[in-house]
Formats: sequence, structure tokens, C-alpha cells
Amino acid sequence: MRNKLMKAIVKDNRRTGAVLKEVSVPTIDDHEVLIQVKATSICGTDVHIYAWDEWSQSRVNPPYIFGHEFAGIVVAKGKLVTNVDIGDHVSAETHIVCGRCPQCLTGQAHICADTQIIGVDRDGCFAEYVALPAYNLWKNDRRLPFDVASVQEPFGNAVHTVTAGEVAGKTVAVIGCGPIGMMAAGIARAAGAAQIIAFDLNDYRLQLAQKMGATAVVNSAREDPLAAVAKLTNGSGVDVVCEMSGHPAAMNQGFKMVANGGRVSILSLPVKPVEIDVTNDIVFKGITVQGITGRRMFATWQQTSGLLNAGRVDVTPMITHHLPLEQFEEGFALMLEGKCGKVVLQP
Amino acid sequence: MRNKLMKAIVKDNRRTGAVLKEVSVPTIDDHEVLIQVKATSICGTDVHIYAWDEWSQSRVNPPYIFGHEFAGIVVAKGKLVTNVDIGDHVSAETHIVCGRCPQCLTGQAHICADTQIIGVDRDGCFAEYVALPAYNLWKNDRRLPFDVASVQEPFGNAVHTVTAGEVAGKTVAVIGCGPIGMMAAGIARAAGAAQIIAFDLNDYRLQLAQKMGATAVVNSAREDPLAAVAKLTNGSGVDVVCEMSGHPAAMNQGFKMVANGGRVSILSLPVKPVEIDVTNDIVFKGITVQGITGRRMFATWQQTSGLLNAGRVDVTPMITHHLPLEQFEEGFALMLEGKCGKVVLQP
Amino acid sequence: MRNKLMKAIVKDNRRTGAVLKEVSVPTIDDHEVLIQVKATSICGTDVHIYAWDEWSQSRVNPPYIFGHEFAGIVVAKGKLVTNVDIGDHVSAETHIVCGRCPQCLTGQAHICADTQIIGVDRDGCFAEYVALPAYNLWKNDRRLPFDVASVQEPFGNAVHTVTAGEVAGKTVAVIGCGPIGMMAAGIARAAGAAQIIAFDLNDYRLQLAQKMGATAVVNSAREDPLAAVAKLTNGSGVDVVCEMSGHPAAMNQGFKMVANGGRVSILSLPVKPVEIDVTNDIVFKGITVQGITGRRMFATWQQTSGLLNAGRVDVTPMITHHLPLEQFEEGFALMLEGKCGKVVLQP
Amino acid sequence: MRNKLMKAIVKDNRRTGAVLKEVSVPTIDDHEVLIQVKATSICGTDVHIYAWDEWSQSRVNPPYIFGHEFAGIVVAKGKLVTNVDIGDHVSAETHIVCGRCPQCLTGQAHICADTQIIGVDRDGCFAEYVALPAYNLWKNDRRLPFDVASVQEPFGNAVHTVTAGEVAGKTVAVIGCGPIGMMAAGIARAAGAAQIIAFDLNDYRLQLAQKMGATAVVNSAREDPLAAVAKLTNGSGVDVVCEMSGHPAAMNQGFKMVANGGRVSILSLPVKPVEIDVTNDIVFKGITVQGITGRRMFATWQQTSGLLNAGRVDVTPMITHHLPLEQFEEGFALMLEGKCGKVVLQP
Repeated sequence: MRNKLMKAIVKDNRRTGAVLKEVSVPTIDDHEVLIQVKATSICGTDVHIYAWDEWSQSRVNPPYIFGHEFAGIVVAKGKLVTNVDIGDHVSAETHIVCGRCPQCLTGQAHICADTQIIGVDRDGCFAEYVALPAYNLWKNDRRLPFDVASVQEPFGNAVHTVTAGEVAGKTVAVIGCGPIGMMAAGIARAAGAAQIIAFDLNDYRLQLAQKMGATAVVNSAREDPLAAVAKLTNGSGVDVVCEMSGHPAAMNQGFKMVANGGRVSILSLPVKPVEIDVTNDIVFKGITVQGITGRRMFATWQQTSGLLNAGRVDVTPMITHHLPLEQFEEGFALMLEGKCGKVVLQP
Repeated sequence: MRNKLMKAIVKDNRRTGAVLKEVSVPTIDDHEVLIQVKATSICGTDVHIYAWDEWSQSRVNPPYIFGHEFAGIVVAKGKLVTNVDIGDHVSAETHIVCGRCPQCLTGQAHICADTQIIGVDRDGCFAEYVALPAYNLWKNDRRLPFDVASVQEPFGNAVHTVTAGEVAGKTVAVIGCGPIGMMAAGIARAAGAAQIIAFDLNDYRLQLAQKMGATAVVNSAREDPLAAVAKLTNGSGVDVVCEMSGHPAAMNQGFKMVANGGRVSILSLPVKPVEIDVTNDIVFKGITVQGITGRRMFATWQQTSGLLNAGRVDVTPMITHHLPLEQFEEGFALMLEGKCGKVVLQP
Repeated sequence: MRNKLMKAIVKDNRRTGAVLKEVSVPTIDDHEVLIQVKATSICGTDVHIYAWDEWSQSRVNPPYIFGHEFAGIVVAKGKLVTNVDIGDHVSAETHIVCGRCPQCLTGQAHICADTQIIGVDRDGCFAEYVALPAYNLWKNDRRLPFDVASVQEPFGNAVHTVTAGEVAGKTVAVIGCGPIGMMAAGIARAAGAAQIIAFDLNDYRLQLAQKMGATAVVNSAREDPLAAVAKLTNGSGVDVVCEMSGHPAAMNQGFKMVANGGRVSILSLPVKPVEIDVTNDIVFKGITVQGITGRRMFATWQQTSGLLNAGRVDVTPMITHHLPLEQFEEGFALMLEGKCGKVVLQP
Repeated sequence: MRNKLMKAIVKDNRRTGAVLKEVSVPTIDDHEVLIQVKATSICGTDVHIYAWDEWSQSRVNPPYIFGHEFAGIVVAKGKLVTNVDIGDHVSAETHIVCGRCPQCLTGQAHICADTQIIGVDRDGCFAEYVALPAYNLWKNDRRLPFDVASVQEPFGNAVHTVTAGEVAGKTVAVIGCGPIGMMAAGIARAAGAAQIIAFDLNDYRLQLAQKMGATAVVNSAREDPLAAVAKLTNGSGVDVVCEMSGHPAAMNQGFKMVANGGRVSILSLPVKPVEIDVTNDIVFKGITVQGITGRRMFATWQQTSGLLNAGRVDVTPMITHHLPLEQFEEGFALMLEGKCGKVVLQP
């Protein structure tokens, strides 16, 4: 592979946008693996980097290749790699962790304080090839289509959130129906939730959430979310809130709609501190609030494979667009407009 | 209602069988409720009492009315009853608990050591009317058919067993496909299990387990269960075993097929002590074994309602027979032959 | 007892203060019990009522007898009472719950939304006698001194908070060292916490927390709490935060000092919504936040009895004052000044 | 270090006994560390190997150095080692796991099915130096004495067993008071158990269990264990059983003495299958049985350090003998007679 060239989407400069370029295929060390990328999907994080917002200005260092969701085939491996073979279909955990901190040493590597993120802190997968530490790879069933396998990473976020407590026979609210929210609706349905109530301001997304499995959808711009919940639950409230909007008002509606003793699992990242009525909405209600980051390594990947390989969740309705890698700008435009579910690029 | 007569199936004598008789409609005290029975289903326990086996000889005191699974309508209530109203559709928790022991005082009433069982220790529901303590009633959704509502009690056993740990994306074995095993297969499917492998010696029952949701069925008389599991799981074993057979050999197969770190939840009641390889099958594997009795009061009933009211599990394929109360002998014959799923009697 | 008179501290008017009066000994119904109060302790809630603050103006209806922490002896019981006998030593759970809501029906009665509180919503125990529903009574070991038995109720709050997750070998922060915080320090020590770091602005209280078992105390007015934690934990942060201050700044320090994956259990009641950095302090850290109300009925009482009867926690250092009932005003003055641990009144 | 010689206890032949020999100091690869052993303690497993019983005949391959419990100082490290430095005080997790199986990938490495054990499957620590994979090392506080640090490995077994569920305020039975049972008594006490009832047939061991923290000791040869428990718990039974005897009869007493809803955590390794009354002792009682193997990697080590560094458990009373490495035969004789707590050898 040395000296061979490949196409890659490069964040080349400290400004909006990115460029498709020919760059060298990456080299690998003894613990690394080279993967030919067959499908790679666009995450909200990639949109931040593309749009060059405040967060990305403070975090990433162009020029580099971004992107972190993908599925591909192993084409080369370092001499100390034993967990995958050439020809294996793989995706990857995005968090490269330190392996030595108290969290890594106690089965909580997903919250390692010394985490590097693929496509953020090092070269990513918006390219024909990507080089990664063998430890981070997850072997895919060969029957899993590459586009479906590519969205396992955000699907894992949704699995982690939804299954962080009991779901079967319960009422689950999904607040915020971006791609992860849509998937959360499908996962809650697959995990036996009796009611799955999805909230968003965007009807297009609510329709996809319904296709994925929501039993009721509420456009919070047109209908009072708390009144809707009261009606749908005979005043009992929901058992579980999956907060995926990041909006302070929506998050607080989540705290209000959850039943006493319920669970609020927060995956979203509000841009500023949020004012919360701790006394009435957390303490008196005796609820549990969970911060959810990444995917449990690798328990969440196992569950994800279990659900997708067995067909318990069908993600194809929310993979709305497939584009060649060259048309990445069209993909980012769709994401910026909110007129899509998941956009998959094919190198 | 006083002095009115009703039909009832009475265990009249200390010998095999039972008789249909006219008896007085029961009276109620201030804390009790009188229910008109619309459907009542036959449990394995009822078959033991009917067949007058060793256990029933030592436990029940004829003459009395047996039966404990039912659905009906409240027709009268004591003056201190506040949780149900006349006209409500109800079923009932079968365990009448003491309310004062350490278990009752700490949310574990289902394992109260001083439990009375309806239809075993006091008059039951194989009759046109049954009188019960208000505390034990569970209100049904009026849209739930009476036959489906009647099987909620054993369905609750299955819910309690299956959901006693994580299920979504996991591999679940159901050992023993009597009615509760069949329902367990359906519940595991509804709760997102990736694979549900059902075991029995009876093909008729295996077919029903498959209809309910098993993804693979194994007739243990014809196929080695451990070999089958090894093949279906690529040698990993199952994550969860729901033991519902009561057979020592089958139970031990369960301990062998579960993966290291897995869960074995036992609802069955083997008639004699079972020899278990504690060292290799429990300790070295680091598994958890759970004894499952009854239904959590009333958390299991809530989950049961959630799953059935929302249609997450359809029990109609395994309710194979509906008979008028008068034809109870035909119902017991079917049960004794194993040629049925659930048999519902209609007074 | 009828027509007999007793001394009681009566909140007689909608203004600051209370009066000692002779009133009728209460009568009891069939489910109630009359208890002779031997010791009753002053809670922060009682101080709010005494001081007639905004909350109490909106909640309580004078004239009535307040107070809810006590220990006494059963002197009479209704004809349907079976769980206690005349002569039994008892204390009581303060929450009188509905028994019918989803929370009550699923072992979560402590967060029943339809709770009445003794001494707030009905007559309390600042008196020679108190009448209570039998269901709420907790039998005490006769060897437990009455003053110690009286503080079991707030001790239970602390048990509920501290033991809501793992403690043995962990580092626990107690933020806010009022009486419940002091007890929390002792309970964390008894439950095997390796380090117990107590925070307050009041040195007197910090000294009592240290006597109870804190291994380090930090006066947050003089020392930066986060710097202190960093030093004491070699930068790892604490595993558990018991938030008992109700101060927004202190609560946020708790969120900052907890390690990734840690637990923040909040018993305090901030008077206004609190601004929380959800993204950095909850989500990225992957922590769990628990709202803690009351005592699990009655699992917390069992643990409380276990700890106190066996002498695992000695609460006598923080019961700093014993006064005759008549000197209640002195007791309230001590509480208002913060110059005390627990104040016990003896009728 | 190359070519330097060291003293080591070598299992040199397939027969009873072992010999002290001069052998080469081991070499290390890039991922390994060389440790100078300062204290090493004798485990029951070592006694099996020494006595050359059936198990050891089938498992170990002489000649090799045995022993696996130790504390020492890092004297050399491979070039890829980053988690320890020369001069660090260390002990080691005994299980060398595969890192790739479903258990290793999901935080359950302690039950990896492809585990190698130090001193069993490869050279151990009964020597002046031992070479180990860096991943397995645990850094000790320099203030921890070497003998105490050496017994952390079996102490971890006891921590894993005792803290596998709630302990504070509960009643805990420890069945079998070998060294791990003695430590379990101390850990249960430190974790706030109200009662700790220890059972054995050997009064010497029961005395040590009592010194460690048992609140009651029962010599099962002289007193009926079930009668003793009934008396000590007013008929309620114990909440937790730590089974460390491996005797079928004692194990079954454990199942009988545990309260409904209780926990039986089994660390012992019965030599043959055990007959268990599954119906009455597991199912009807609704208990949880846990197989406990090794130490959670490395959550148990963290808790162990927490408890020992803070002085929450003092293990010195049960470290009854210190001998120079040369007198190992005296140590094994003490172990075979049962006339000791823990025996520490000092190279």
C-alpha cells in the first residue's frame, strides 16, 4: 500500500467547508489495521467540523481527514494484531482510550478522561482507507450491508441510552428526533416498550421516528408536550426519558413528564448550563438522571450486533440518502437543512 | 347476591377428579369484592389437584372450589374498598400475603413466607362468581378480551422470569415449553432478544413456542441441546436461561449452555433435589442463578399490562381451547395429554 | 384516654413561633394506634414551620400540633391493628401514603404523589401522645434509648442517600453537615467508605461530622473544595457525592468533584432552580444523579435498625441537647443559630 | 539481571513436595516487568500442588516455580511498559486473560474462558524474582507493609464475594473460616453488616474469624447451624450467605438459613456435584445464587486498596506466621494441619 494514493475528504483549513483530495494511503504500526472503507456516514459532529463552529475551532487541527462512522474490510494488519484477519468486515469504536485510568481499569473505558476520538483528534474515515488500532475494531457479520454496519456507531449511542434501565412494558419518551432519536424509537420498540412517544419540532423527522417505531409523535411547536403525555398516559407520566435534543426547554419538559421514580437518560450536549428545578423535578420525584457518553466497550457493540443481525431493528427507513464520496457537499447540505435521516457516503 | 346459587367446579373428595355443582354465591366482608367470572384458565397446579397427586394430597382440603386464573367484572364490593368500582374489569394476584413480614415490608411480598393461594388454600375461581380481597385485584383495560386477561397470571410468571435481567440483543434459552415457556418465548422476543432458543420433548409445544416467537426450537429427544446451542451461538453459549421444565437433566443442560457470566432464572419446581456441578457450572462460570416465584406485586402486573395492552405480545396463538365451564373434564384431559396450549373455561 | 388532657406544642397561629398548650389526648380509629411519646426531636422542617417561612405559609394550616420525629410506647390500639401490641416501643414512618398509585403498588411508596406528612398535613408528635395509622409504625428494639430511636427518621434519610449505591472501599463526599449530613458521614464510615470528606461553612458542624466518622473536613469558606478533593484523591475525584446543602454553588462543586462514572445523590431541597453544566458535568462524565426522598418503606427502616441496634453507628455525639418539652423555644433557638447537632425534647 | 541466579521453590517432580533451588532470574519481554518479591503468601491452591492431589496432577506441569500471592518492587520493565515504573511497589492479578473473548470485551475478564493462572500455568512468585505481564500489575501504596500487600489477592476474593450485593445493616453468614472466610468476616464488618455469623468445625479458625469481626461464631460440629441462626435472627434467617467451605452439607445449610429473597454467594469449589433442593431452597425462597471467581479486573482491586489503605480492615490478626522462604516446608505443614491463618514467606 505504501505510496499508493487515495481519495479523502480533508478539512484543509480553519474555515467553513472541506475538500476532496488525493492523499497517501495511511501506514500502520504493529498494533494497527488498515481498512478499506465501503460506507461512511455523516454525524452531527462532522457537520460541526464542516461548518467550523466555535467548538470545532477550539478542538480540531486542520489539515486532517475527518469522519468516524464507517464499515469496511480489513486489507492489512500489524504483526502484533490477533483479533482480526484480512478480509474481515469491520466497524470501529470511535473512542481510543488510555487503558490505564481508574475508568479504563474498571470496565468504564467509555468515560476514560484521556480519550482520543477518531476523525476529531486523529485522521478519520471519510476516505478510501483508514488506519486504526486493532483494539478498537468490531467484527461485523458479513451479511450486514455496509450502510447499515456504518451507522452502528450512532446506533450504539441510542442502544446505550435506551437500555440503561428497564424498558419492556414501559412508556418511553424520546425527546429530539435527529438520527439517534429516530434509532432510539426503534430500539425502544424492539426492547418491548409499550408506548414510545417521540418529540421534535420537525415533522419530517417525526415521520421517520414513527416509521422506526414511535407509537405517538408530538410536534412540540404545535402541541403542549406535557398535555400530550398526560393524555397518552392517563396522567401517570412516562417511565423513561431519552433526552436527545439538547434544548433547555425540551430537557426541562422531560423532567416534568417523567413519573415519580422514573429515569431520565441524557445523551444530548446542551451548549450552555441548564437551569433545572432540582427540588421538584429530581428530589421530590425520586428520579434517576444518567449522563450517557459513547458506547460501553464493548457491551453496547454486542447488543447492537444482536439487535441488527437478528433484524430486531430495521434502520433502513432512516438511512435516507446514499451518495458517492465525491458528493459529500450535497450530504452536508442535507444535514444542515435537516431534510434527511442518515446520509451514507460511498468511497 | 345472598342465597343466590351459582355453578362451580368443586374438588369434592380426596380422590381423582372434580364435580360441577350448584353452590351459594360467596359473601364478602368489608375489604372484599365479588367478581363475576367471565373466563378462567386451567393451570398446571389445577391439574395436580384434579389428578390428586402427592403434593395436592398434602396441601388442599376438599371440599372446596379450585382455580385461580381468571378475568371478570366487579359486581359488589365491601364498604372499605376504594381501589375498584362495580363494573370494573379485573383479574387478581393469586398470592394473598401477610403484609407484615420482612419480605412484605420491603417490596418483596411475592415471597412472603405466610402466603395463602387462591384456589389452593381458599375458594377459587372455577365458578360463576369469586370473592377476593380488594388488595389483590388488578384492573384490566376494558379492551382486553377476557380470555387474554385470564392468562395474565401465568403470563406474569413468564414476564417475571424473562425480565429478571437484561434481554435486549441477548440470546435467551427457554427450557420447557408448557404454556409459561411458550409465553416466555413471546416475551423474550418482544423484549428484543436476538435469539430465542426453545427446548422441549413435545413437538406440538415446540410449534407453539415458535409461533409465539422462538427463533429456533430444539426437540431434546432428537437433538443434543448443547450441540444445538454451540452451533446457534458460534460456541459462545446463551446469555440467559429460563428454566421451566423441572427436569434435572434439562436443568443441568441449562447450566452447561449458559455463557460465563450469564443468568439462569428458575421458575420450575423439580420434585426432588437436583445434583448440580456447582464448581464448574456456577462458580467457575461466574453465573447468577435466580429463584423466581409468582409475580412482583405489582411491578410485574404493570409490565404485563404494558406488554398485552400495547399488543407487544399476542397470546392468542397459545390459547388453543375455549370450553364452557361444564366441559371442564375435557379441558383437564387435554392438559393431561399435553395436547394444548392454554385451555380457557367460560362460566 | 378519652377526655384526658396532654401537653402539646401547638402551631396556633399564622405567624412566627408556637405555644405549649393543654389539649385533648387524640382518639384513634380501628386502624390506628395511640403512642405515649418518650422522646421527640426537632427537624429542619419544624424550624421552617416555627419560623413561619414562605414554604410553611403555603403548606400548613394552624392551629395544629407539629413534629414528626419521635420514639414512644404503644398505649392503645384500634381493633383491626395486628402489627403492634400495647407496650411495644415504636417510632414511625412520617409519610402516610395512598397505597393505590403506581408507585405504592410497585415498592416505591416513598415517592407516592399523594403523600400526607405527619406533623405537616396532620397532627404530629410534639406532645405527650400521638395517634397514628398502625401501618406506619416501626417496632424498636427495647434496648435502643428513646433519644436514639427518635432520630431514626432523619437517620433513615441519610441511610437512603448513602446506601443508594456502592460505598465499601470508595471515596464519599458529604456536602452540607447539618444533622443528616453528620449522620451520613457516620453511615458512610460504617459502610466501609475508605475516605469520607465532609464540607460545610460551619466549623462546629464540621467537628461533629468528624466525630461521626468523616476522615477529612473542609470548611468551604476557607479552602477551595475542588482543590481539597484533588489533593485528597490524587486527582481522581470522589466516587460518591451526598448533596445535603441545598446551595447551588455547593451542589455544582459536587458535580465537579465527582469522578467520571460516579454518583451524586441529592437529598437537599434548593429553594430555586439550579443552573447545572449538564454537558460537561453529567453527560461527558457519565455520572448518575439520584433524587432521594424519604425512606424506602420499609427497607430503609430495616437497614437503620440493623446499623443502630448493632452499634455500627453511634449517633450520640451528634445528639447534642436534651430538653424538657416545655423548653422547646430554647431548642428552636439553638436550631436557628446552628449551634447544635440534634435537639431532643422529652415530654 | 541476565544470568543472575535466584532462590525459588520449585515443584520439580510429579510427586508430593517441592524443593528450594537456585534457578536463573527470569527474563522479560517488551510487555513484561521483573519484580523483586518481598513477601509471598501460601494459598490453598499451593497446598494442593504441594500435596500433589488429583486436581494438581491433571493441571500442572513440573518442573516449574509455583506461588501466586505476593508483593514486591519493580526492578526492570520492558520497553513498551507504561503503567508502572522501576521502584514501584506492586502486587498482581493472578489471572492472565485473553483480552478478546466476549467476557474480556464486556468488563467480565475475571471469567475469561481462556485464562492462564500465575503459579499454575506459568512460573509463579515463590522466588526472589518473578516476571509478569505489565497489564496484570497493581500498584500498592508504599505505606502498605509487604505481608499485608501480599494477601490482597485472596482478600480480593473475599471482597468480591461479600460486596456482590448489599451488606450495610444486613445479617451475613460466612460458612467456612479458612483464610478467605476470616477475611470475609472482617470485610462484612467493615462494610456495615449488623451481624456476621461465622461457621466452621475448627475452633482455632473460628477464633480468628471472631478477631477479624464476626459477631457470633458457631462450631457446626457442636451446634446446629440452623438452630443457631434462628436464635440469632429471631427466626428471620440471614440476608447473605458467603459460602467458602465447599462442603455439600454446609452449603445446603447455607441455602436453608438464608431468608426469602436473600443472596448466596459461592466462592468455594466442592469436589463433586452437590444435591440442592432447588424447589424449596431456591425457587420458593426467591433467592439469588452467585458463582464468584477471582477478582473483578480491576474494580475489586480498587475496593481492596480502599479498604486496606484506609485501615477499614486490619488483616494482621490472621497473618499468623512469617517464615523465610527457605522454611517453606514448615509453612506447608501448618497449612495442612489447619493451625494457621495466613502464612507469609519472605525471600
